Amino acid sequence: MPKAVEKTVKIGVLGASGYTGAELLRLLIRHPGVEIALLTAERRAGQHMRQVFPQFSPYALPKLLAIDAVDWKAEALDLAFCALPHATTQTVIKDLLAAAPTTKVVDLSADFRLADTAAYARWYGHEHHAPELQKEAVYGLPEIYRQKIKAARLVANPGCYTTCAELPVIPLLSAKAIDPDAIVIDAKSGMTGAGRGAKEEMLFSEVAEGFHAYGVGHHRHMAELDQEFSRAAGREVIVSFTPHLLPINRGIFSTIYVRGLKTSADGLHAILSRAYAGEPFVHLLPFGEMPQTRHVRGSNMIFIGVTKDRIDGRAIICAALDNLAKGASGQAVQNMNLMLGFPETLGLEQVALFP
Amino acid sequence: MPKAVEKTVKIGVLGASGYTGAELLRLLIRHPGVEIALLTAERRAGQHMRQVFPQFSPYALPKLLAIDAVDWKAEALDLAFCALPHATTQTVIKDLLAAAPTTKVVDLSADFRLADTAAYARWYGHEHHAPELQKEAVYGLPEIYRQKIKAARLVANPGCYTTCAELPVIPLLSAKAIDPDAIVIDAKSGMTGAGRGAKEEMLFSEVAEGFHAYGVGHHRHMAELDQEFSRAAGREVIVSFTPHLLPINRGIFSTIYVRGLKTSADGLHAILSRAYAGEPFVHLLPFGEMPQTRHVRGSNMIFIGVTKDRIDGRAIICAALDNLAKGASGQAVQNMNLMLGFPETLGLEQVALFP
Amino acid sequence: MPKAVEKTVKIGVLGASGYTGAELLRLLIRHPGVEIALLTAERRAGQHMRQVFPQFSPYALPKLLAIDAVDWKAEALDLAFCALPHATTQTVIKDLLAAAPTTKVVDLSADFRLADTAAYARWYGHEHHAPELQKEAVYGLPEIYRQKIKAARLVANPGCYTTCAELPVIPLLSAKAIDPDAIVIDAKSGMTGAGRGAKEEMLFSEVAEGFHAYGVGHHRHMAELDQEFSRAAGREVIVSFTPHLLPINRGIFSTIYVRGLKTSADGLHAILSRAYAGEPFVHLLPFGEMPQTRHVRGSNMIFIGVTKDRIDGRAIICAALDNLAKGASGQAVQNMNLMLGFPETLGLEQVALFP
Amino acid sequence: MPKAVEKTVKIGVLGASGYTGAELLRLLIRHPGVEIALLTAERRAGQHMRQVFPQFSPYALPKLLAIDAVDWKAEALDLAFCALPHATTQTVIKDLLAAAPTTKVVDLSADFRLADTAAYARWYGHEHHAPELQKEAVYGLPEIYRQKIKAARLVANPGCYTTCAELPVIPLLSAKAIDPDAIVIDAKSGMTGAGRGAKEEMLFSEVAEGFHAYGVGHHRHMAELDQEFSRAAGREVIVSFTPHLLPINRGIFSTIYVRGLKTSADGLHAILSRAYAGEPFVHLLPFGEMPQTRHVRGSNMIFIGVTKDRIDGRAIICAALDNLAKGASGQAVQNMNLMLGFPETLGLEQVALFP
Repeated sequence: MPKAVEKTVKIGVLGASGYTGAELLRLLIRHPGVEIALLTAERRAGQHMRQVFPQFSPYALPKLLAIDAVDWKAEALDLAFCALPHATTQTVIKDLLAAAPTTKVVDLSADFRLADTAAYARWYGHEHHAPELQKEAVYGLPEIYRQKIKAARLVANPGCYTTCAELPVIPLLSAKAIDPDAIVIDAKSGMTGAGRGAKEEMLFSEVAEGFHAYGVGHHRHMAELDQEFSRAAGREVIVSFTPHLLPINRGIFSTIYVRGLKTSADGLHAILSRAYAGEPFVHLLPFGEMPQTRHVRGSNMIFIGVTKDRIDGRAIICAALDNLAKGASGQAVQNMNLMLGFPETLGLEQVALFP
Repeated sequence: MPKAVEKTVKIGVLGASGYTGAELLRLLIRHPGVEIALLTAERRAGQHMRQVFPQFSPYALPKLLAIDAVDWKAEALDLAFCALPHATTQTVIKDLLAAAPTTKVVDLSADFRLADTAAYARWYGHEHHAPELQKEAVYGLPEIYRQKIKAARLVANPGCYTTCAELPVIPLLSAKAIDPDAIVIDAKSGMTGAGRGAKEEMLFSEVAEGFHAYGVGHHRHMAELDQEFSRAAGREVIVSFTPHLLPINRGIFSTIYVRGLKTSADGLHAILSRAYAGEPFVHLLPFGEMPQTRHVRGSNMIFIGVTKDRIDGRAIICAALDNLAKGASGQAVQNMNLMLGFPETLGLEQVALFP
Repeated sequence: MPKAVEKTVKIGVLGASGYTGAELLRLLIRHPGVEIALLTAERRAGQHMRQVFPQFSPYALPKLLAIDAVDWKAEALDLAFCALPHATTQTVIKDLLAAAPTTKVVDLSADFRLADTAAYARWYGHEHHAPELQKEAVYGLPEIYRQKIKAARLVANPGCYTTCAELPVIPLLSAKAIDPDAIVIDAKSGMTGAGRGAKEEMLFSEVAEGFHAYGVGHHRHMAELDQEFSRAAGREVIVSFTPHLLPINRGIFSTIYVRGLKTSADGLHAILSRAYAGEPFVHLLPFGEMPQTRHVRGSNMIFIGVTKDRIDGRAIICAALDNLAKGASGQAVQNMNLMLGFPETLGLEQVALFP
Repeated sequence: MPKAVEKTVKIGVLGASGYTGAELLRLLIRHPGVEIALLTAERRAGQHMRQVFPQFSPYALPKLLAIDAVDWKAEALDLAFCALPHATTQTVIKDLLAAAPTTKVVDLSADFRLADTAAYARWYGHEHHAPELQKEAVYGLPEIYRQKIKAARLVANPGCYTTCAELPVIPLLSAKAIDPDAIVIDAKSGMTGAGRGAKEEMLFSEVAEGFHAYGVGHHRHMAELDQEFSRAAGREVIVSFTPHLLPINRGIFSTIYVRGLKTSADGLHAILSRAYAGEPFVHLLPFGEMPQTRHVRGSNMIFIGVTKDRIDGRAIICAALDNLAKGASGQAVQNMNLMLGFPETLGLEQVALFP
């Protein structure tokens, strides 16, 4: 194994009682290069992880702390994962980096994803609480921003919906191969994407044996798509995007309708093939084959398929990933590996769990 | 209760061992105007329904016969529901109507849905076996073709995907309110839509906890959409349509992306509101509210919602129905009621089963 | 139809925003003899049912009230269903019957099921708030207490677990055909049995794709089993009982291990067959066949199966019902029918919804 | 890492197109000590694994062969996993070991689990086809037979139901702490335990949203339980055992009712605690806590809980494992590790996937 693995780095997980926190632990417990040194969870402070997530019962882990009880300087973390709610995040990271400026941070919230302070204020209804850090933050999509991530102190881990739309679409926009004004993204997500908050509409009996759309026409993930698609296209891009809730735990599936500009559907496939050759976590299926969420469950993979529509000049692209893995915590560990000099795939080699 | 109910009509269900057959029985057992006189099921001939579907164990029902053992003339059915596989259907109905020309037929297969013999041959790869009956058949979407259905001898019950796309879109095309060249239909179906045939890809462990698209770019339901949308628009309409499989038993959900021609999203809502005023089984939600499949489960309802996209001039329409009820057997009973002079809602009053 | 149906009675549902409330409405909307005159829901007071349960959107229903806003005398209800939380129930029913003594009540909570005030205090940790009514209340298991229910003003609707254990076991205890000291009941329930309260452990992602036991060794339903089993046996009976949670919406399944006292397994089957001959909602399967929850979903049926164990002198009995129907609201309507002189099956004829 | 890992051994998987085959591949692809040299699958011979299980699409694996096309001597496998159907297995292993006597075999079928040829013939209705090998085979429950397994050439991997019942019960029988004549095992299994054969009763729509028992009173797994329980108790033990099907993919849950002989429930807990101290894959929960299948999903762990019943002298023990992991392929890899001199936990360190 590579030399980097021999050194052990100190890692903290802020917000360990949610699903992305649990997924970080699942991966980090078996990551050969890290020591899990700090865990926080506000309402569960003082408890053991086994009381919050019994699957960790066999493992020795630090007790859960409240964030206010943490001395960032004394902890001297090499890196902190921040899996906290929107807005709280901004204050916590600001405090953390003020006290321990050499600690690196991967933030799993949406708080540092938008580079434009005006766009942030428009979508979230208030000024950003840490605008300096907002400027510093690097958007953590490794396949697009690998070099910047390696050098970053603060990485904004992308959203699950957006990862599953950006990876298949960005290379096509960059190549000016599709019409930027005629992109329709119909997205479907498993329930863990909605978090662990106890809400009536998330109860088993409200979700099982049914399906619905939500946030139609105005979902916040759109801001992130706008930003990355516009960067790729070199002009403003606004897409139709509809999120839906699937009665499954894990999985995001994007069905993407595009119109080619001179490029045929197999030409689009070829562009993606070139863009992702050698990428360990992006798997492009043979032309005409389509992915399924179940085949990436628990892995850090995104599977992408491209086929032609029966209408000339149009193509349909489908992408599938595990929203907790490549859509959140897996990608966060991938970013950590880049930021700390580990091999990019370290601790992320799990084969998908199917069935 | 209306007078029509007092007379009892003799009904047969051909293909009673599949899911649409079972759903017909669920409805017909409690329909006050009918007697279930004949049940067929090829591989289960000689068995009782309780061996095929134990939920019918408490009810007295005729034994299952093979179709070859049936004397159509002697049976003297008032109406037969035909829930048989593609192609077989054409021969069986031809024989049935030759022997018993006064029996009426509601066919739940796709065999008589296409009026154009050339379109049929193109999509199905062979000439139709009963072209005369193909001409006679009426497309059984009651909200659109009610008067024709009342007078029909042979009704082709629409597909589940198509019902869930046609009801929300046809009035908009008829009113020339949307661009016929920019319709994208992203459709999702529960597993019962795939039938009861024992196939590996339909096993519980292949389906649960996952999601995927299938038949992308070339699904046969498109032929039916083309026909009905073109009729409504008065010109050729071809749409982008992608079906997906949901890990649920019952439910179809259509997410439909349209572009208005001078008409705003709330204008589209108003058109649908006028089109379906007084319809017992079409429920238009208030503007901006979206349906869920679970709220129509087991009922003969379709729920439709309309909202505006954030992109000016575009709207998103969602529709939900139960693929076995309004998408198949419920609609078939609705057609039967029209054909036999019963009140249209008779036996179809079930309130949705949620949770 | 029988004469009783022609008269319309005024019905109230207290606690209409929970699952048993919704199931009552599903049944009562189509019940030909009743008018739904009053609906209450504390936290949703002022709202329409369609905001609480969108499946009722097509139906005209009274607005939701807070209980304090109700004048019981003025309402002059013929019967009120009480689907309120434990303890609150006692006070509400006491007030209601004080103000409107001729209103009848079917209570779906556990508050009036135990006849013994000492047993109540022991299991619930406090004295009963309405001991006079506790004495008056009749245990609402129609197949066992039909005559008493007909004459009752206050009926305590049995629990879902207990109905699914008592119906298969009581006739065997009454006939002294099984050893009362060697009964093991392993029970499994769908999630709707846990109600609609927003709790973390009831979230979709906590429940789907998993299974567990709960309340092992000390579940409150045991008190009710003790009471009814002891009544049937004419001596004290205490059973081993373990409840489990199934990742399904509806359904209770009991696997019951018994030892015969001189009676063989088919002898036990014969006893149940005699006990339930003619019962419209108890369906005993042929000896050796076992029920499935899916075959009773949405119906008011209990299916019971009996087979012999491979160990001589032992039998295994399985029973399945829909916890919201025969396990709660269906049985409550059955009790209402008895109390108000309707035919017992009126409004409860739905055939099970499978698949 | 230990020295053993450096050497690479050649492994074959016979029957790679089923679920236990896929699970073996999931684990072996990441096992640092093995090379996957041979894969067979009769009906899929000539295909790539990606056509059979698309989750393996990113990995280079040998093409699928038919068994008849394999030259066992030339392959010179160090070890073969045999995941073939009952009966076929006996012939294949006989031929394999005749041709390549130094190849070791872990058999995942039931064919070599029963040591008694008479018991085999009684339960399976025919003489064993390889009685010599039946004598040679070692029962592969590592926590009980570790030393024998290390020395074995042919290991019979235990069944999933039986592993989940034997591990919690065997130490109690060995210690004569429970009444061997009063054990009731109520077992529930996820659907993958039923395999990948396309059968109607295993379709998604037949299984989802429901629950049932099967094989009540006469399931073949009982033979294996009888053998191991009788060995442990030193006398004949026959238990009441009922299997049920859960609408989940992975997971076995056993609810076990026992009566102590002088030993209290916490005494039973103490016996298990001593028996499994230091075992890497058996996790005993604190007294009174109960396991859940979801907390072991995808891991090789069994979680066990013990509590007292409310009836004096009785205890309830619950156990949960993943039927494809510790219940089949994980345990098979554990056996391989023992047989080939690898550290026992190598390649089996995955933390459970929850949610």
